[in-house]
Amino acid sequence: MAEAASTREGTLVLIAGAGRLPELVAASLERAGRPFRLIALRGFTGRPLKAKADATVDLLDLAATLAHLKAWSPAIVVPAGSVARPSAAAIFNAGAAWRNREALRDIAAGGDDRLLRAAVGLVEENGHRVLGVHEVAPDLLCPEGALGLVKVDAEADASIRTGLAVLDALSPFDVGQAVAVAGDRVLAVEGPEGTDKMLARARALGRKPFGRGRPNAGTVLVKAPKVGQDLRIDLPTVGPRTIRNAHAAGCAGLALRAGRTLVIDRAATAAEADRLGLFVIGFGEAA
Amino acid sequence: MAEAASTREGTLVLIAGAGRLPELVAASLERAGRPFRLIALRGFTGRPLKAKADATVDLLDLAATLAHLKAWSPAIVVPAGSVARPSAAAIFNAGAAWRNREALRDIAAGGDDRLLRAAVGLVEENGHRVLGVHEVAPDLLCPEGALGLVKVDAEADASIRTGLAVLDALSPFDVGQAVAVAGDRVLAVEGPEGTDKMLARARALGRKPFGRGRPNAGTVLVKAPKVGQDLRIDLPTVGPRTIRNAHAAGCAGLALRAGRTLVIDRAATAAEADRLGLFVIGFGEAA
Repeated sequence: MAEAASTREGTLVLIAGAGRLPELVAASLERAGRPFRLIALRGFTGRPLKAKADATVDLLDLAATLAHLKAWSPAIVVPAGSVARPSAAAIFNAGAAWRNREALRDIAAGGDDRLLRAAVGLVEENGHRVLGVHEVAPDLLCPEGALGLVKVDAEADASIRTGLAVLDALSPFDVGQAVAVAGDRVLAVEGPEGTDKMLARARALGRKPFGRGRPNAGTVLVKAPKVGQDLRIDLPTVGPRTIRNAHAAGCAGLALRAGRTLVIDRAATAAEADRLGLFVIGFGEAA
Repeated sequence: MAEAASTREGTLVLIAGAGRLPELVAASLERAGRPFRLIALRGFTGRPLKAKADATVDLLDLAATLAHLKAWSPAIVVPAGSVARPSAAAIFNAGAAWRNREALRDIAAGGDDRLLRAAVGLVEENGHRVLGVHEVAPDLLCPEGALGLVKVDAEADASIRTGLAVLDALSPFDVGQAVAVAGDRVLAVEGPEGTDKMLARARALGRKPFGRGRPNAGTVLVKAPKVGQDLRIDLPTVGPRTIRNAHAAGCAGLALRAGRTLVIDRAATAAEADRLGLFVIGFGEAA
């Protein structure tokens, strides 16, 4: 509780990447009456926030970001929104704040998250506390229970149980924040391609039904972060588009880890689920 | 050992589906000096074997197959080769030997293997012993150790260990006979789409390298059946095409479960691996 309270106190700096998320976080902070400073990333931060920015920096110019943070000395730094992979050349030319070329090479060769992870590490090394969106704007997360009007039936419930067991089994490995499951049959395990492409695969599998029956009846998209996943860098996210893609893939609904999955625009997401007849359920720790 | 010996004795009936496998099995049996009778499946069995068939039946006319088996009373029945999914209508119209419409509906709604599994069950219920290709033609399986000239390096070895651990974790679930792994990063888990499409996914992920480094260095295709998998119905299979697809996906090599993976044309597979610089290694139980 002390921890939770402390995330809502002190000055906060929001570093805004691309997409709607930074806007939603800013709105959440404003609703909560929490003052914050805003750093925009040139070429990433969207128009509405760009106008409000206290500073604008280049993604790779971490020295500039660190200088602002040093001047403002905030209690908390929150990165939000996506940053596309910069070119290797841009990274190799960036560098002042980075320690050495070997570290850069390692970052450049790594997965999508490695740059962000390295940046977070550098900000922390400079004495700042970095928190995730889930910690400062919990109202943006999937709650426990039903998000829309459609209920989970027994068929889907069996799929959810299988899906959770599969995600649990895969938890030690660098793979799979989501699965598409029909009963005891796993249609697709998400890899680095992401949820939308994974759903497209499940969709392709469903496109050749064997007879007029529903071959993948009770298909559910089950999504949850891995144990130990750094949610500041990689927070599972759904939105109205996820609902549409899941529907197209033949899903009866979505089961999401409550409090650990971001719902981009909860009202629109629930409305889309209701419109297409999909359930959206947030499950807790014990599920 | 008594079991192993008994698989090489007595009369044998080979039921030949599509693809090269039935031919290879027939050749293996001939090499071993083992007599056999051949049932061709109309529209599936390839030309070279069709001419040699002792009987030709329709895939769905199990009554005819059972009548032949009753007349010949073989010690062993071996299904080999693929059978495409017949239409639901064909299944519903087939039926004399099938017990009831509910069983058929269940089969029609199931996965690709359910029809074959049901057919094997029915043949067994009629008092016949059904064995797999791996039991009567072990010379077609991947041996332990290297299949070609290329050696496994330390990078690939780490990938193999991760891949085996992932397959092991997924073993209780109906998914994943294969994974593509780069170090500790799982690029793709095979679902019902099969190994070739899974490799195409890994290939797409590798197509956007971050910098000039090798982002997925040491990528390995690791393939093994699940614990308890019925190898008579679903035997993991590779061949020259798998080598080409793995190469295109950026793999350094293939690690296959020895004695449990069919290698279609071992000489051509090893030659293709050597030509493209990929290792192919068969790993044993303890790996």
